[in-house]
Amino acid sequence: MQPMIDETHDPARRSFIDSANNPESDFPIQNLPFGVFSTSSRDPRPGAAIGDQILDLLEACRHGLLPQDIPQEVLAQDSLNALFALGRGPMRNLRRALSALLSESDSGKAVRQLASDLIVPMASCRVHRPTRVANYTDFYAGIYHARAAGALLTPENPLPANYKWVPIAYHGRASSVQVGQGPVRRPLGQKPPSDAGRPPDFGACERLDFELELGFYVAGGNTLGSRIVVEDAGNHIVGFSLLNDWSARDVQRWEMFPLGPFLSKSFATSVSPWVVTVDALAPFRVPAMDRPQGDPRPLDYLRDTEDQATGGLDIELKVLLSTAHMRSKGESAVEILTSNARHLYWTPAQMVAHHTVNGCNLQPGDLIGTGTISGPRDEELSSMLELTAGGTRPLTLPSGETRSFLADGDEITLRGRCRREDFTSIGFGLCTGTIMEAFPFSSA
Amino acid sequence: MQPMIDETHDPARRSFIDSANNPESDFPIQNLPFGVFSTSSRDPRPGAAIGDQILDLLEACRHGLLPQDIPQEVLAQDSLNALFALGRGPMRNLRRALSALLSESDSGKAVRQLASDLIVPMASCRVHRPTRVANYTDFYAGIYHARAAGALLTPENPLPANYKWVPIAYHGRASSVQVGQGPVRRPLGQKPPSDAGRPPDFGACERLDFELELGFYVAGGNTLGSRIVVEDAGNHIVGFSLLNDWSARDVQRWEMFPLGPFLSKSFATSVSPWVVTVDALAPFRVPAMDRPQGDPRPLDYLRDTEDQATGGLDIELKVLLSTAHMRSKGESAVEILTSNARHLYWTPAQMVAHHTVNGCNLQPGDLIGTGTISGPRDEELSSMLELTAGGTRPLTLPSGETRSFLADGDEITLRGRCRREDFTSIGFGLCTGTIMEAFPFSSA
Repeated sequence: MQPMIDETHDPARRSFIDSANNPESDFPIQNLPFGVFSTSSRDPRPGAAIGDQILDLLEACRHGLLPQDIPQEVLAQDSLNALFALGRGPMRNLRRALSALLSESDSGKAVRQLASDLIVPMASCRVHRPTRVANYTDFYAGIYHARAAGALLTPENPLPANYKWVPIAYHGRASSVQVGQGPVRRPLGQKPPSDAGRPPDFGACERLDFELELGFYVAGGNTLGSRIVVEDAGNHIVGFSLLNDWSARDVQRWEMFPLGPFLSKSFATSVSPWVVTVDALAPFRVPAMDRPQGDPRPLDYLRDTEDQATGGLDIELKVLLSTAHMRSKGESAVEILTSNARHLYWTPAQMVAHHTVNGCNLQPGDLIGTGTISGPRDEELSSMLELTAGGTRPLTLPSGETRSFLADGDEITLRGRCRREDFTSIGFGLCTGTIMEAFPFSSA
Repeated sequence: MQPMIDETHDPARRSFIDSANNPESDFPIQNLPFGVFSTSSRDPRPGAAIGDQILDLLEACRHGLLPQDIPQEVLAQDSLNALFALGRGPMRNLRRALSALLSESDSGKAVRQLASDLIVPMASCRVHRPTRVANYTDFYAGIYHARAAGALLTPENPLPANYKWVPIAYHGRASSVQVGQGPVRRPLGQKPPSDAGRPPDFGACERLDFELELGFYVAGGNTLGSRIVVEDAGNHIVGFSLLNDWSARDVQRWEMFPLGPFLSKSFATSVSPWVVTVDALAPFRVPAMDRPQGDPRPLDYLRDTEDQATGGLDIELKVLLSTAHMRSKGESAVEILTSNARHLYWTPAQMVAHHTVNGCNLQPGDLIGTGTISGPRDEELSSMLELTAGGTRPLTLPSGETRSFLADGDEITLRGRCRREDFTSIGFGLCTGTIMEAFPFSSA
């Protein structure tokens, strides 16, 4: 089911909720992303973001305003797993119904009359992790990142020999996926010995980093032993969010041979609260990344003409940094990089096809990260490791402070925005995290 | 809470269920492992194995026979997660209560009177995965395996430089953990190119392997950002099962650099149906593996005198192979290796302390694998990779068949058994899997 451009993308459509009509809003009526929210009087439940408000989907269902193929029990949940389990079709119908309900036209009347029941100001809500993540996989599909990180970690072999054949990935830790708001505790861990033969150092991570990624969520899924072919993969991807793959570089360097990253990643992964659906993203689909001359053609199970033509996403991405010092002076966060989702070497559909080619079962609500999305230019390097050349070329901030890696009190914010002429711009909201000092420890 | 030897281990205690008193039984009254079962008239629910029968814990609770600290709702579940969330103390009380209820003495009268409600023949039951695994981690704590596998995969560096400092682990795929019964589908995947510069091969795995491991389950757990210190780790381990970490060696060799194994493992992981509690294992605790002279002392956060004294487990392990040909001739499975859990370089408590030292949160029902438990002797090599020296020295079976790796129709069975003079021997039951042919595929 390829996403189609339809009346929900009409830039002339306006919402009766004024803030949604502000061209700067991430959540105009053309977006309508899903998330989980709560208030002092509402338990955590699914909602849709519209301007600076949230539509309570459970209440909307109770009032009979949602399509028949959305049973109330999938909304009486503190996660989107059951909703996503319905699959792509019902999700598309739901978004289309919400587009009518929240519009200025007559169809929005029912919601307007019940507004006090159905619409809640975002500022009065708490947002939660969108799904109960049972499985989290992180790919490595940003080729500029793979090359830059490889040059620093394994200079003799910057791009692995398998890179252009295998959509490389590893299993991440599901329990520590958190919604991108609030604190991230600096981890403790073993760090490389200062000299070979010496014991490793132990203590607080000194090379704490972020990684700018997109995450996507699985709808439907497959049973163990079956597979999802690349042509069908789009039916199993419900939407995207921003993802920050926090990384402890010193811990990573010491622990990762031979089985890959473990504690250097598992202390926290942050996702933005709103899942922007593939349907909302339809106008912003572009051809997959052009493979450079001489690169091999993907193996058959990864090849699909339509996916190559429309499997890329034109999403502008940026990372902002605000230090504790800057905040104390009232200074705004500073943009430290911009990138674009176009720089992914493998499309999400290829990732799904690869993930299941061995019969591995994907489940509704599973989270899949793309890997760090760096671009070819210096300002598109999407981690501190890359931006500072492994810490050797610290960034100097407008405040005069310098950073090789992240300091306590630093707040990292990821943002994403789609723009295309003749279409309404949509955004992803914020994915933030503020570094808190490590817990004290007695000794090594 | 260290497990203690108490009256539940008394070898003189007998059950009114005759089969439990057979000295060959894996499940005498001194064991009482937990699992999940169903019958044609009972939905999946927790049970305890006793001889060749299962005690229905939900029914036992409904009849008021279980301790007060086991609420009925934790048993009205199709997994043990809620039961394990109660923590070690209630689990210990539960096992002690069952030991009385199932004994020949007067205390067993209530159960005997209700036997038709409470006791179900194992042969009429289906067993299920013990927990809804949200997180599965696999360690690499078998040093003889690490050295043997390392010599084959990376001969220039058989034992990684970090091995004696870091309890190496990686995140495994949770969704494909299955109960060790029935079929395992041979996976498809990319395999190393025949020549450098050539495309990789694609097709059915040709080097399909098992790995003999133990798995253990988390009780209680910790919140994100906190840690479980080694001295407290025993309070968070509820029990052990057998674990088969099925591995596609050709896929693994090609995919695993730099982020570790992915599709080569995620097609299936099998666990035995019964969780043998740490309390049942109390008599079989032994000192942790003696570190060879010259090996470094573990860092402080991995060091605990009591854990070193009693954190090892004396569990005899074996692997049996039966080919389709052998079964067609009525021949029994042949034992292809024996090993012992004593050969683990790191204790389960050290694994828990390491896993959480960065603040990663463990959750009730999480599954943690030890890594392949090979021993120092040739007959203790615990995978085909090791037994056949990477496929170069095929095994010859009594049937005359040879095996470098596993063939379609091969059935692998793991077994585990504890023995100690003056104590009743207990076992782990079976963890089996039969290789089914790969699904056909059209082309690369």
